[in-house]
Amino acid sequence: MMHLTLIGIGTGNPEHLTLQAIRAINAQDLILIPRKGAGKADLADLRRQICADVLTNPKTQLAEFDLPIRDPGTPDYRQRVNDWHDAIALRWQGTLNAHPQATRAALLVWGDPSLYDSTLRIAARLDPQPTLEVIPGITSLQALTAAHQISINEIGAPYLVTTGRRLRDAGWPTGVDTLAIMLDGDCAFQTLDPHDIHIWWGGYVGMKEQITHAGPLETAGPEIIEMRTKARADHGWIMDIYILRRTSC
Amino acid sequence: MMHLTLIGIGTGNPEHLTLQAIRAINAQDLILIPRKGAGKADLADLRRQICADVLTNPKTQLAEFDLPIRDPGTPDYRQRVNDWHDAIALRWQGTLNAHPQATRAALLVWGDPSLYDSTLRIAARLDPQPTLEVIPGITSLQALTAAHQISINEIGAPYLVTTGRRLRDAGWPTGVDTLAIMLDGDCAFQTLDPHDIHIWWGGYVGMKEQITHAGPLETAGPEIIEMRTKARADHGWIMDIYILRRTSC
Ligand SMILES: C[S@@+](CC[C@H](N)C(=O)[O-])C[C@H]1O[C@@H](n2cnc3c(N)ncnc32)[C@H](O)[C@@H]1O
Ligand SMILES: C[S@@+](CC[C@H](N)C(=O)[O-])C[C@H]1O[C@@H](n2cnc3c(N)ncnc32)[C@H](O)[C@@H]1O
Repeated sequence: MMHLTLIGIGTGNPEHLTLQAIRAINAQDLILIPRKGAGKADLADLRRQICADVLTNPKTQLAEFDLPIRDPGTPDYRQRVNDWHDAIALRWQGTLNAHPQATRAALLVWGDPSLYDSTLRIAARLDPQPTLEVIPGITSLQALTAAHQISINEIGAPYLVTTGRRLRDAGWPTGVDTLAIMLDGDCAFQTLDPHDIHIWWGGYVGMKEQITHAGPLETAGPEIIEMRTKARADHGWIMDIYILRRTSC
Repeated sequence: MMHLTLIGIGTGNPEHLTLQAIRAINAQDLILIPRKGAGKADLADLRRQICADVLTNPKTQLAEFDLPIRDPGTPDYRQRVNDWHDAIALRWQGTLNAHPQATRAALLVWGDPSLYDSTLRIAARLDPQPTLEVIPGITSLQALTAAHQISINEIGAPYLVTTGRRLRDAGWPTGVDTLAIMLDGDCAFQTLDPHDIHIWWGGYVGMKEQITHAGPLETAGPEIIEMRTKARADHGWIMDIYILRRTSC
């Protein structure tokens, strides 16, 4: 019987690790490290570094494996994602099968396993089903609010967490004045009327590369697009996140 | 010049502490510990315990202070909260003034400082303004999703975080199928038509007292009300949080 632990590791600051995460890392026979291929933000180096920093159990082995590629030929987005998750689950299974003595295995999940992450859905595809354990980790949203020293919510008010795609396709949702936007490859804030909107933006939040900017969307928006383009060119990749708040009301 | 650090400590599991939080605790001259009074969930014991566990700097002092009481005579909610925050800021200031040699002080913030927490707003009232630093911590929402081993979002879909009061007063918001509800003293889910809604609930999440329940709201709702009433009577207080998801679509 396999026991699988999904360990939230935070967003690139090795000090985001919780004591619970460190203890869980040291309780494993096997830690699975996914690789995306050269030049990609696969963060395998960071995962290796975290293990090097906190592993004190000599019995814990690392097992690297190559992530499959999403098939751009599948037209339906949901189907494409589903197929890809199936393929990843097979790679996990193959890696686990190659280590038949291991009964406790873990994945180091970027940020928190509950937030726009597929690891739980992929784990549900394993057959036989392992017993599961989830360790929370600092999310990119918290690294963003910490960097800007802001509350995400106004007193007693709600906030919505959504994706760049949704913001672009559906516009500002009704009934909420604070939005947090993730998974945005195209600065979807450009599609909004910028008046009376404030933005708090961050790239590589929590990492040593961290860059931030904030201000009224009208002026800060174009500045962020420029910073983002430059940073992406410099590093070869970028992960960014932002909060938008209506200031008129 | 005072430097003030707001340190997220997670939700009651001492292992929620991050390495960054531990380092920050040890970098202080003074750690302010608020007290609410006997029988209240002031969590002062837990904060003392955390310091006892991780403090290795002999120069760091703890300074306890009594929280003021909200004036129930002030009819307006926002005004009442504002007055209370003013009063708390004065207590902080008094405690800091009593330790004139201290130039680095910190507060241990429950969960994460960005999420339905007033510490940042109270800090903004200090005069002179200290320089600020914010260290993220595991939120109750993440402790809830970890306990239930669920993602908060469906693939590419948004979620809204809101309060029990809002849910009761305004009903299910439009355009979103997943809600996370905090600050709910009255099980506001009772005010919804329970059909086609799933609930994942948790009390004392992350703490040794943790209790959880999940299921279709129609059957799980009344069970949760019963569990909650009993737990509250047993412990004298409760903190709970839940996720609701529409399952029809
Ligand atoms: C697949 S989601 C994973 C989120 C992760 N589970 C978390 O808890 O933050 C990836 C998105 O998270 C955000 N993100 C993750 N890490 C980030 C970082 N260090 N800086 C800025 N944004 C980040 C970006 O919006 C990115 O598109
Ligand atoms: C003032 S807010 C503080 C939230 C905190 N900053 C966080 O990050 O979780 C208090 C609300 O958080 C939730 N909460 C905090 N700790 C909790 C716990 N251990 N178990 C369940 N809910 C909790 C409850 O909904 C409670 O009403």
